[in-house]
Amino acid sequence: MSKCKYAIGVDFGTESGRAVMVETKTGEETVTAIYPYKHAVIDKTLPVDGEPVKLEPEWALQDPEDYIRTFQKTVPDVLAQAGIHPEDVIGIGIDFTACTMLPVKSDGTSLCTLTEYSRNPHAWVKLWKHHAAQPEASKINAAARQRGEKWIDRYGGKISSEWFFAKTLQILEESPEIYTAADRLIEAADWVVWQLTGVEKRNSCTAGYKAMWSKRDGFPKNDFFRSLDPRLEKVIDEKMTRTICPLGEKAGELTAQAAEWTGLREGTAVAVANVDAHVSVPAATVTEPGRMVMIMGTSICHMLLGDEERAVEGMCGVVEDGIVPGLFGYEAGQSGVGDIFAWFVNNCIPAEYKNEAIDSGMGVHQLLEHKAALKKPGQHGLLALDWWNGNRSVLVDVDLSGLLIGATLATKPEDIYRALIEATAYGTRVIIEAFEKNGVRVDELVACGGLPEQNKMLMQIYADVTGRNFKISLSEQTPALGSAMFGAVAAGRKAGGHDTIVDAARHMARLKAEIYQPIPENQEIYDRLYAEYEQLHDYFGRGGNNVMKTLKQIRDAAG
Amino acid sequence: MSKCKYAIGVDFGTESGRAVMVETKTGEETVTAIYPYKHAVIDKTLPVDGEPVKLEPEWALQDPEDYIRTFQKTVPDVLAQAGIHPEDVIGIGIDFTACTMLPVKSDGTSLCTLTEYSRNPHAWVKLWKHHAAQPEASKINAAARQRGEKWIDRYGGKISSEWFFAKTLQILEESPEIYTAADRLIEAADWVVWQLTGVEKRNSCTAGYKAMWSKRDGFPKNDFFRSLDPRLEKVIDEKMTRTICPLGEKAGELTAQAAEWTGLREGTAVAVANVDAHVSVPAATVTEPGRMVMIMGTSICHMLLGDEERAVEGMCGVVEDGIVPGLFGYEAGQSGVGDIFAWFVNNCIPAEYKNEAIDSGMGVHQLLEHKAALKKPGQHGLLALDWWNGNRSVLVDVDLSGLLIGATLATKPEDIYRALIEATAYGTRVIIEAFEKNGVRVDELVACGGLPEQNKMLMQIYADVTGRNFKISLSEQTPALGSAMFGAVAAGRKAGGHDTIVDAARHMARLKAEIYQPIPENQEIYDRLYAEYEQLHDYFGRGGNNVMKTLKQIRDAAG
Repeated sequence: MSKCKYAIGVDFGTESGRAVMVETKTGEETVTAIYPYKHAVIDKTLPVDGEPVKLEPEWALQDPEDYIRTFQKTVPDVLAQAGIHPEDVIGIGIDFTACTMLPVKSDGTSLCTLTEYSRNPHAWVKLWKHHAAQPEASKINAAARQRGEKWIDRYGGKISSEWFFAKTLQILEESPEIYTAADRLIEAADWVVWQLTGVEKRNSCTAGYKAMWSKRDGFPKNDFFRSLDPRLEKVIDEKMTRTICPLGEKAGELTAQAAEWTGLREGTAVAVANVDAHVSVPAATVTEPGRMVMIMGTSICHMLLGDEERAVEGMCGVVEDGIVPGLFGYEAGQSGVGDIFAWFVNNCIPAEYKNEAIDSGMGVHQLLEHKAALKKPGQHGLLALDWWNGNRSVLVDVDLSGLLIGATLATKPEDIYRALIEATAYGTRVIIEAFEKNGVRVDELVACGGLPEQNKMLMQIYADVTGRNFKISLSEQTPALGSAMFGAVAAGRKAGGHDTIVDAARHMARLKAEIYQPIPENQEIYDRLYAEYEQLHDYFGRGGNNVMKTLKQIRDAAG
Repeated sequence: MSKCKYAIGVDFGTESGRAVMVETKTGEETVTAIYPYKHAVIDKTLPVDGEPVKLEPEWALQDPEDYIRTFQKTVPDVLAQAGIHPEDVIGIGIDFTACTMLPVKSDGTSLCTLTEYSRNPHAWVKLWKHHAAQPEASKINAAARQRGEKWIDRYGGKISSEWFFAKTLQILEESPEIYTAADRLIEAADWVVWQLTGVEKRNSCTAGYKAMWSKRDGFPKNDFFRSLDPRLEKVIDEKMTRTICPLGEKAGELTAQAAEWTGLREGTAVAVANVDAHVSVPAATVTEPGRMVMIMGTSICHMLLGDEERAVEGMCGVVEDGIVPGLFGYEAGQSGVGDIFAWFVNNCIPAEYKNEAIDSGMGVHQLLEHKAALKKPGQHGLLALDWWNGNRSVLVDVDLSGLLIGATLATKPEDIYRALIEATAYGTRVIIEAFEKNGVRVDELVACGGLPEQNKMLMQIYADVTGRNFKISLSEQTPALGSAMFGAVAAGRKAGGHDTIVDAARHMARLKAEIYQPIPENQEIYDRLYAEYEQLHDYFGRGGNNVMKTLKQIRDAAG
């Protein structure tokens, strides 16, 4: 087969969906199309006619029709742009935010599209950042602790309000009629694959990271669910399935209807669904232990592969087959990174800096980086704890808050900016050390996401602080590339794709040429500063001084 | 005597001198005149012809001719403006920055005005903020500790590099020829009185607060001075005097020459010299124990009277007759207040706020106050340690630095601004509690200086945090008013003045009508926040965690 073959990856984000057409031999990303969702994040009122249906605080919903429209708009668009014959597109893969889940009928019809349910918020898609199920998450955590459930260890001892059963329990408690009407409760990732293939297949990534499933032990036992609510006892057998497909499998083939939506050939291979962060790992060339992928944006998601299952303090989860089949996928995270820098730029940059940035044609971030880079490590005299958005690393405590120490009358904005960047690097080092302390190796770092592209100083600081080489994924749309790679694997080598994701990564995933290497004299200074960071981290984060919590209590009582 | 009589107060500041004409019965300030010094602060090169004479870092000198010109320019000006006959001006008083000192010949001629010495920096006036004598101050402190000198307890255990003998020892060590040529070493405050009266009289305020003198024990013993340097052994008897005049005395009368400079009558009463902060106390109506005067500007000077001598942690000094004759005057301080707010406004205010301030015709400080006042105490969730300029209160440690804790992505600039104001109020409360713990009562607060005028929120916060009524001196030039009051006392009641400073205060000093009273529900919240402040204060300030010092060491090593 000498002719070029292609796979399409479709990445479902929070505000929009995007499709990328990728050449399966080289990984070249030929064309891209984006569809901004019509209803994006629904967090005020439902998009229904008649009397408005208002949502409570912390709610975040989506319209599943937006996902279908994403297929209808973006796939024909990339086909047309690239001028490629549908028969040369051998496979399609998708990745999604998670846990983003919805209640549907047995034929896949989403409840919110049925007139009798459309005015009930619980009939809609609960987006990953729907945070209204905290009471249910707390209930699940308390029950797991009380019953000594072993599976909770795989999740750093605590599950999040964003996860599948917290959302499920919220539906049951607040709207039992929706719970009853739902024949199936399903991740949106799996639901869109169902829409493409006509078959319900559930992926090991969301099952493992968001629904407490493991390859060896399955889901939590029925009596655990009964202990939460008797009506929940048989949720797995009644509304889900115990059959979970490992990543890299083919979920099915495009139906006639989906072929019509997309302009692709009926029967095109469709990969098992995946999650945006996890699908990025092979797309960042990583299919083996020892190389940590960091998806860097408003927050950082840390993804790492290992040969064994280990308990690591504060990690989000460890799932066998959760990232690459045959290995244990570890996920950890920092809850505030790019959004801390954005906060700083929006709230703390004087007018003169803004004008200087405009006059010099730089962005404000660039100007700050330029100014900050004029000083040596440690020269600003500052240290920060990067907890502006709480701590989602080893401490797992949303009530922690940001700290800046060392300010003098000579402190400049670029000094604080740099201290904030350094603090996030120390935060990553804490995660790396937690992994290594528990026998999970971290030899080098690979970045993807929006942040690394623009900020060389940040990359060098991370290399210096962690003492590890830091590389960058070549693709600027790593998740979509990863989805296309899984599409190529679903099609298989004979069809012009690949037999395994390891093969796909070897051919289709690439890194940028530049490597950020630790500079020994910087490392020496950052080692000293990190020791101070650790001391403050433990003092304020492990109960030495609970002032951060007290301040939030006083704040909440005053407000 | 029914006709109005007047006294003139002359306040010698850092950049300028000002004269105020005050009616002795009512304290009415009729007219004011300001002379900006020709040479102001000399910190780069000496104002001499020929090859430039450059100064080292940390040097700060003045030209004594600027002081004479202040008399020549401002006193005739106020006389002319007010249209008052010189015979109706019954007395004149002065106050000065301190320790500001100079070497002179036995007739009062300053060495820097003599051609043979004018190119030697040590021949000039060393201004209070000349900070180049730190090695000498350290030497004095070490010797005092080693010898167990009791007088050091009156100064919180440590003298400052700004003080008289640190500067004297620097002259001796670096320029023995100037030391030898100086017949007298004298506070500029006393020197200008000498210029007015022709007699050298030294005041108890500068002697006590800046030259380790006390009414009961006199100066440190000769053998202490010998231990510093054998040539210094007889400094008191050779170049100073053991006769110290209490405040409130008449130093002498205007000479014919001084009458010619000023346009006043020869023989007009001249008061013993005073210091700007100290002279403000009676001008703020305070002549009795229990009411603390706070001179609030870039920093805060806390002045308090007591019946007994007590040792108080970190105080700058306690001096009998040092503020009001017959009482012990206590001085304490916070090294960063208004300058922290200025730092914040200069470095951390976004362009939109600046534009909003311009559009609404407010100052930025006013706008921030307006926004900050919309929230209740504690509602911003922040806490700060006000150590941007080190700590000069109970901890006396310049290597401490600023801290902000509790920041989130929702934190706004006005929240930080308010937290900084609150932190300085907590700093004042620490000082109040140190006084009260040692038996020196603080029942209410009286503010003067630039800060209280413009910032109602700040005043209310100080009242709430300290739990004390907070009043404001009516005069906007409290030091000059205080000097005029002492001028009226030097003249005496029979001449139309007053017999004592207590009488003068009763007639001439007034407060504004508004009183800031603690609001109980605010106090309750601030008590909780203050407990958190105290814990952080002690943890970072008393050795629990020396991160602030480590950061400065790393900074200095990097720089």
